[in-house]
Amino acid sequence: MIEDKNQQRTPISSLGEFGLIEHLTKHIELKNSSTLKGVGDDAAVLYFGDEQTVVSTDLLIENVHFDLAYMPLKHLGYKAVMVNLSDVYAMCATPTQIMVSIALSNRFPLESVEEFYAGVLLACEQHKVDLVGGDTTSSNKGFIISITAIGHAKKENLSYRSGAKSTDLLVVSGDLGGAYLGLQVLEREKQVFLVNPKNQPDLEAYSYLIERQLKPEARKDIPGLLKALDIKPTSMIDISDGLSSEILHLCKQSDVGCVLFESKIPIDPQVLTVCDEFNLNPTTVALSGGEDYELLFTININDHDKIKGNPHLTVIGYMTEDANQAFLQTRADQRIPLTAQGWNAFRE
Amino acid sequence: MIEDKNQQRTPISSLGEFGLIEHLTKHIELKNSSTLKGVGDDAAVLYFGDEQTVVSTDLLIENVHFDLAYMPLKHLGYKAVMVNLSDVYAMCATPTQIMVSIALSNRFPLESVEEFYAGVLLACEQHKVDLVGGDTTSSNKGFIISITAIGHAKKENLSYRSGAKSTDLLVVSGDLGGAYLGLQVLEREKQVFLVNPKNQPDLEAYSYLIERQLKPEARKDIPGLLKALDIKPTSMIDISDGLSSEILHLCKQSDVGCVLFESKIPIDPQVLTVCDEFNLNPTTVALSGGEDYELLFTININDHDKIKGNPHLTVIGYMTEDANQAFLQTRADQRIPLTAQGWNAFRE
Repeated sequence: MIEDKNQQRTPISSLGEFGLIEHLTKHIELKNSSTLKGVGDDAAVLYFGDEQTVVSTDLLIENVHFDLAYMPLKHLGYKAVMVNLSDVYAMCATPTQIMVSIALSNRFPLESVEEFYAGVLLACEQHKVDLVGGDTTSSNKGFIISITAIGHAKKENLSYRSGAKSTDLLVVSGDLGGAYLGLQVLEREKQVFLVNPKNQPDLEAYSYLIERQLKPEARKDIPGLLKALDIKPTSMIDISDGLSSEILHLCKQSDVGCVLFESKIPIDPQVLTVCDEFNLNPTTVALSGGEDYELLFTININDHDKIKGNPHLTVIGYMTEDANQAFLQTRADQRIPLTAQGWNAFRE
Repeated sequence: MIEDKNQQRTPISSLGEFGLIEHLTKHIELKNSSTLKGVGDDAAVLYFGDEQTVVSTDLLIENVHFDLAYMPLKHLGYKAVMVNLSDVYAMCATPTQIMVSIALSNRFPLESVEEFYAGVLLACEQHKVDLVGGDTTSSNKGFIISITAIGHAKKENLSYRSGAKSTDLLVVSGDLGGAYLGLQVLEREKQVFLVNPKNQPDLEAYSYLIERQLKPEARKDIPGLLKALDIKPTSMIDISDGLSSEILHLCKQSDVGCVLFESKIPIDPQVLTVCDEFNLNPTTVALSGGEDYELLFTININDHDKIKGNPHLTVIGYMTEDANQAFLQTRADQRIPLTAQGWNAFRE
């Protein structure tokens, strides 16, 4: 589906492990004063002074988390970093360093790895993050990526999942469901391509959804926006598995309940149109789709006026004192229990 | 070869991703005051006061880095942690936290993952390290492990690879070649087993080698020993790829050369005997074998008296001012250039 116009293919074995690492890391420029030593020793060395350090990690496997039939390697590198930075922002912390490990089978030439790294480095540049280490090895099948992100924050600014209180408002950034629908569109086009490789798909009507899937942006702006609005979120999580799953995490760890209003869930018009085309319910897509990488958080009800009308933020519900009782209040004014339909890696 | 006597097999899909994480992490006890928040939020939260933070990561792939035919899962968990802690000790730092990510295909039941975690937690206990996060997902083939280790040290105590000076002595802890020979023994037994599964191997003559391969110990004691001897190593690295490869790293990053004396390389008597049996040269095994996880470092020549006769440490050579010129001085008093025959993941 994505044609490889680059005819130059250099086998990685011609460089060896150390040669490959040197080739890939020679253009790294360190940007953070907290990075004392990056790639090239047994460990990276960091210094955070009197701030607290946060660390998050993710493991991504080809054909489980991504499909190279429609995921260009540069986008994959970019997205793999975003997934991790999103976790750091969800602590209201600032990411400063990442470690990137990859394993690849010998079907990948050097040029593929360079593409992947170009995406990684672009993400680093846009989020002012230093690539400080990693591991590079071979796999017997497919492409495997492990990324660890490190960040920092003052103690009083960190947002855990566990601070939500009854009567707090539940707020989400951006809109939901786009990334999942983008995946559905790409899956469909892949099937069409398998039947007729000459078919040139016109994907313009799906551009927003595909961008949400292939090039998600971690919400770097939200912690800063909240600070500017003088709001300290009482709890926060990023939306990787779908809205219901994340709401249930906040409820469980904060020991509260929640009422979510179906009519308030922010959904882009393109999501509505394409849900119609795919015969999917937009609410289900938002609740269970995942991969939106928006931030979900709770604020004290007294802060409501500060965010009212803000185009980046939507109040979608409120927290209750009934521990672990989370409900969806439907458009028909019925209350149904929220369940985590989130993506389950172990379902067969 | 290693018989599974445990008949109870619980499919992981019966727990789901979050259930599995909860099951595996419920017995974690945090031991370090620098661990403010472990498993269970978007990121772990650490605080190192005015010390410097070191971070190291490794990616291990089934049938590339380990073979479950002779590597029990508990040992694998233990070794995977050791590999990472070894990098932290090689900075002369103290490891305090690890993140453990695994991906596994559905051929592994819950009991296998529990075995693996038992090894991880045993390693954590012995090195007083907190398991603070990770990722758990499915793979389409085999067992994939990614571990990140975090530690700390005062600035003045850190040992980089880049500080060796001409006339410094080159010192190694323990003895070399055992882990590689252990692997050769296990590979041979695996072939015997494939031909005749009823054969019960007598491995007593190889016990030291097999332990070096299956249950390596990161040299936690060496940084403390050096401190007690009032020695500040000028450079340090751990031996994962074989002695020559690591010497060349020190030379390159310190911009010095080296003379290594073949007659000084510490080799266990069992390694000598079994090298004979396998028709291998013990020096080659020590130079290129890898996986010994001993520490290799340089000290000022004036510190020689402090380590003379120490049973844990052997002076094996000295550094020269001829940048990147590393030689092996043979028993026959010939000088031959050292080359990195180290394990190359990308060789076909």
